[in-house]
Amino acid sequence: MREVFQQELREVQDRLVEISELVVTSITDATESFNESNITLAEQVIANDDKIDELAIALDELAINILARQQPVARDLRIVVSALRISANLERMGDISEHIAQLARYRFPDKVVPSSLRDTFANMGALDVEIAKKLVQLLRTQDPRLAEEIRNEDDKVDALHISVFDQVLGATWKGEAVDTVDSTLASRYHERFADHAVSIAKKVQYLATGDWIPADTPSHH
Amino acid sequence: MREVFQQELREVQDRLVEISELVVTSITDATESFNESNITLAEQVIANDDKIDELAIALDELAINILARQQPVARDLRIVVSALRISANLERMGDISEHIAQLARYRFPDKVVPSSLRDTFANMGALDVEIAKKLVQLLRTQDPRLAEEIRNEDDKVDALHISVFDQVLGATWKGEAVDTVDSTLASRYHERFADHAVSIAKKVQYLATGDWIPADTPSHH
Repeated sequence: MREVFQQELREVQDRLVEISELVVTSITDATESFNESNITLAEQVIANDDKIDELAIALDELAINILARQQPVARDLRIVVSALRISANLERMGDISEHIAQLARYRFPDKVVPSSLRDTFANMGALDVEIAKKLVQLLRTQDPRLAEEIRNEDDKVDALHISVFDQVLGATWKGEAVDTVDSTLASRYHERFADHAVSIAKKVQYLATGDWIPADTPSHH
Repeated sequence: MREVFQQELREVQDRLVEISELVVTSITDATESFNESNITLAEQVIANDDKIDELAIALDELAINILARQQPVARDLRIVVSALRISANLERMGDISEHIAQLARYRFPDKVVPSSLRDTFANMGALDVEIAKKLVQLLRTQDPRLAEEIRNEDDKVDALHISVFDQVLGATWKGEAVDTVDSTLASRYHERFADHAVSIAKKVQYLATGDWIPADTPSHH
């Protein structure tokens, strides 16, 4: 019985890793479709988001089922409760990737942002991909250094997010209203994606320390 | 023992209602500060968000504590798990109110949106307040008709959200880039606020039916 239970807890962890791997694919393809105006890739991201949603629901059902049957306590209970919360963040990260891909699709064959902002968005996208990859490793290993690295990269995303507004509101901005809207939304999506990763990192930390933390981090814009 | 447990479940429900009442105050003041450029009210919303965060964390701790001590099953387990998830939505709704108030504060003494959009935002704000009030009643009574009403009002918010983009991207838009940025962000915040209410309504429905539902609703922009 005890062994079955430990097996189930490993299953919960494996499924979190599996979903986070799909999130890596999703944000990689979404940012590429966004930066390169690749409509095929954008459509693929949008179509694949259902898979992330389904896996998140299935994981929630497994977690609730474990709570009902095994009635875990202490660290085991924390693992199951954290999984429920982390799956919600991962599901939302998939949604945000989808939003980025939708922006690429709306404006196709045009690019979403004017040339003056392309480097900034390429950098934000690369950071989001890097953060998602570190998240997979964090969920696999619970190594606290990875949580720290994710937090540092989130700071870089926040700085780029602010720099987008500096550019859009600066004297040299030549964009049309549509460029301003798209840049604002795209920047917000990239920033929220990283916020969710930080939120997950805090939940993984809770597994180690037992200190509960808020559902979400306040975000700046 | 059984009676203590039922008392604790009521406590969980009461605390959700309490937090949702603070969210009503928060969105009421935030939208008023936004629409009237009331800096005092904006500061108040920003200062009060900590209280919502604290209560949400305290509720999570209570819920986890109940899971550990009482090891609930069936509907009791669903109540506790739902409370954990609903508190995350309420906490986020408080954050979004704060973001709306922050926009008012940034632009003070100017108004955040140009006059052509003021009616639209007044309507969106009034709908968000209405939705938050219905949420309090829904959490108090679990009346499924309220869930349905919240969903209908969310549809109205979505329609206004789309109309903001129609106006900002229309031929007659005279706004500067700053107006475009603010209108885009503000509209997104108003829309996300309502999405979280719908997400809570689905979780309340889960209490009745036992069918688990995704962490969040996909949102449009």
